[in-house]
Amino acid sequence: MNQQYPSLLLQKAVDEFSKLPGVGKKTAMRLVLHLLRQETEEVDAFGKAITQLKHEVKYCKVCHNISDTDVCQICANPSRDTSTICVVESIQDVMAVEATQQFHGLYHVLGGVISPMDGIGPSDLQIDSLVERVSKGDVKEVILALSSTMEGDTTNFYIYRKLADKSVKISVIARGISIGDELEYTDEITLGRSIVNRTLFTGNI
Amino acid sequence: MNQQYPSLLLQKAVDEFSKLPGVGKKTAMRLVLHLLRQETEEVDAFGKAITQLKHEVKYCKVCHNISDTDVCQICANPSRDTSTICVVESIQDVMAVEATQQFHGLYHVLGGVISPMDGIGPSDLQIDSLVERVSKGDVKEVILALSSTMEGDTTNFYIYRKLADKSVKISVIARGISIGDELEYTDEITLGRSIVNRTLFTGNI
Repeated sequence: MNQQYPSLLLQKAVDEFSKLPGVGKKTAMRLVLHLLRQETEEVDAFGKAITQLKHEVKYCKVCHNISDTDVCQICANPSRDTSTICVVESIQDVMAVEATQQFHGLYHVLGGVISPMDGIGPSDLQIDSLVERVSKGDVKEVILALSSTMEGDTTNFYIYRKLADKSVKISVIARGISIGDELEYTDEITLGRSIVNRTLFTGNI
Repeated sequence: MNQQYPSLLLQKAVDEFSKLPGVGKKTAMRLVLHLLRQETEEVDAFGKAITQLKHEVKYCKVCHNISDTDVCQICANPSRDTSTICVVESIQDVMAVEATQQFHGLYHVLGGVISPMDGIGPSDLQIDSLVERVSKGDVKEVILALSSTMEGDTTNFYIYRKLADKSVKISVIARGISIGDELEYTDEITLGRSIVNRTLFTGNI
């Protein structure tokens, strides 16, 4: 549909919305018209929430997680285990691991994985600051919790080599078939790895 | 996933985004983090485009289409045929009809259709102002271009009765099988109607 907008203001708002990932012109139009139907205060709150976030957001000086303060809530929490660092790609991954309630150490947010195809090299990521954190000596274990992709594996290996001369244990999160998955539908690489990396059955699940 | 946000500002922005129709918490988070990666000026432009639209947008006094001016570009255009009014539900529908380049008259945007289930009655729509426009006598034809739904049909009938005593021709856009559709997959009501409302074959398509 070759769209001629009845209003320049409308067109500008639709253009801005359609810059968002996964939002086309039609969806953008729908979202903008939805906002137009809301109260002025609500629309102002929407606009403000976004600009305020961009202007005022901080990143934790220690782990690079998003934060309202210089040091994030997790790093500043005295009850967390400071000897374990879980290395993740993104803020979402911190939230995902936190939601499991299975990890009580600290995080280190890389900001991505090494991906030469996308022009992302080690220097674009928070790898040097990870090495620096580990060098301080307090850290006993670094858990690599990156995506199970070629890029994730490359990054794991890069970090492993960077930390090779430090006296720190380096582990990687378990790969295997997901809870609830049926063997028949599991891809063969995952299934193969889960056989190689089998663990002792103790009667507990 | 029971999400604990690492930042209140982030949470506020995600909450605002997830109020949009069809946007869940996960999508909202993805969109917000996308915006966070953009330049500050771009984020400001995004926020401004939306609030500015809400504050400065106007609706055409004549046809109720969205507009930057008191009377919209279409109503103000002297080359449009002022004797024909196409009645549509929404701004998007004006744009859809305009995109066909088959209509050169004016529009009337109802702002919805009569839908008792959603609490939308005739008084919530721009029906009185349509009757008023027609009463002025200049209008020769009113084309009803509403959705082919129960609500659309109800609204068509309501408008038809409201205009019954005016000397105006009332037409409804053709319903039939879509161009490119195969008969086999056309629903029987549409197919039935398209047989009843068959038109003379003139050799042109």
